[in-house]
Amino acid sequence: MTYEFYYWPHVQGRGEFVRLALEEAGADYVDVARVKGVEALKAAMAVESAEPPFAPPFLRVGKRLIGQTTNILLFLGDRHGLAPKSAAGRLWTNQIQLTIADFSLEAHDTHHPLGPRLSFAEQQAAAMTRADWFRSERIERFLAWFETLLARNPRGPGHLVGGRLTYADLALFQTVEGLRYAFPRAMARIEPAFPLVVALNARIAARPRIRAYLGSSRRIGFHERAGLFRYHPELDG
Amino acid sequence: MTYEFYYWPHVQGRGEFVRLALEEAGADYVDVARVKGVEALKAAMAVESAEPPFAPPFLRVGKRLIGQTTNILLFLGDRHGLAPKSAAGRLWTNQIQLTIADFSLEAHDTHHPLGPRLSFAEQQAAAMTRADWFRSERIERFLAWFETLLARNPRGPGHLVGGRLTYADLALFQTVEGLRYAFPRAMARIEPAFPLVVALNARIAARPRIRAYLGSSRRIGFHERAGLFRYHPELDG
Repeated sequence: MTYEFYYWPHVQGRGEFVRLALEEAGADYVDVARVKGVEALKAAMAVESAEPPFAPPFLRVGKRLIGQTTNILLFLGDRHGLAPKSAAGRLWTNQIQLTIADFSLEAHDTHHPLGPRLSFAEQQAAAMTRADWFRSERIERFLAWFETLLARNPRGPGHLVGGRLTYADLALFQTVEGLRYAFPRAMARIEPAFPLVVALNARIAARPRIRAYLGSSRRIGFHERAGLFRYHPELDG
Repeated sequence: MTYEFYYWPHVQGRGEFVRLALEEAGADYVDVARVKGVEALKAAMAVESAEPPFAPPFLRVGKRLIGQTTNILLFLGDRHGLAPKSAAGRLWTNQIQLTIADFSLEAHDTHHPLGPRLSFAEQQAAAMTRADWFRSERIERFLAWFETLLARNPRGPGHLVGGRLTYADLALFQTVEGLRYAFPRAMARIEPAFPLVVALNARIAARPRIRAYLGSSRRIGFHERAGLFRYHPELDG
């Protein structure tokens, strides 16, 4: 069965967490709006189903549409061995993923704290205030937590959960990559204090399927026009 | 077994979604920081476990600590019949809950778009810009989605999911109550367009355990000093 994945075609955004899981799983999927254009995404959203998604990303699995990034990952984790099989392990992985979602949303809010109706230029002063808090407190607070999880993992510091890769490892990779893009100066200062996170990131990037994906045209690049992570030098302190 | 629930003692906040589920379930629980003070919360957070929560709320279940509001609800939903038993039904309920979490976080961000280091007074201008977007677009967009779910529910408009109460119904109740507190003028204008949401709210408030809880000293009131929903007349348009 081929999954149909629906997300904005020119943006990594939240959808990238799902794309990475699909790629690592070697799943058969079509990134619909990248192939057929954004109208195909809008058409799927307009279908009057009993379980409509509120917003992209969503995944069509047979007749079902599954929405919300963390929820899609919960589904894919079970289906493709990207999460533990035990109920406790699944919940713990979901808990970590929710925290990664919080972290990446806070990164987003640095460039658009007043919402999407104003351009970055129109809210730059507010963005600088919000980014200053994020750079000076939040990045380290979150990374310290992930470093702690790796250091305390009873199965060793190779993964966030147990002894095998989970979707949470992939999502942390994406977040660290995004922070390096958006806050290069801050991350150069901060990340040496978190060697286990840095090492995990390097291992994820070197996984064969991830490496092939990152080098392919399927991987959309980071850019400052859209997405969770945008580079504005003014926000990098 | 008695659950130990950990959250800030003077705030509804994200913790209130968990409190409502525990109350509706008739679960045996202690709201630890309300009984023993905030030091007991800090002590629990300082324990060097392999699965430490990033932030409150969290729930102690035997030796485990389960964190992240949506994740705690996923756990309680299974344990206490507050979610469907089928895998598809559980995911759909989780998807709705994640959307309620997004909605309530956006309500929070109206009063503190620049983060918690500045007081409301210090960021009032930014807050007014953000709140204007929330009031004029976002409240209706979210409520319209919930109204649609109720209207299209194959089991009727009595609940968001299937024919029985789920934790998502309780969380939507809490969010609507919070919006009525924080944006009384805007909600008086907006909510008549969403009669199924309004009717669900009234039914939740009338459930015996919820009614008893709301009338008890266990229910912390809304206030403007902390929490997701705060009343500042300047933000109500």
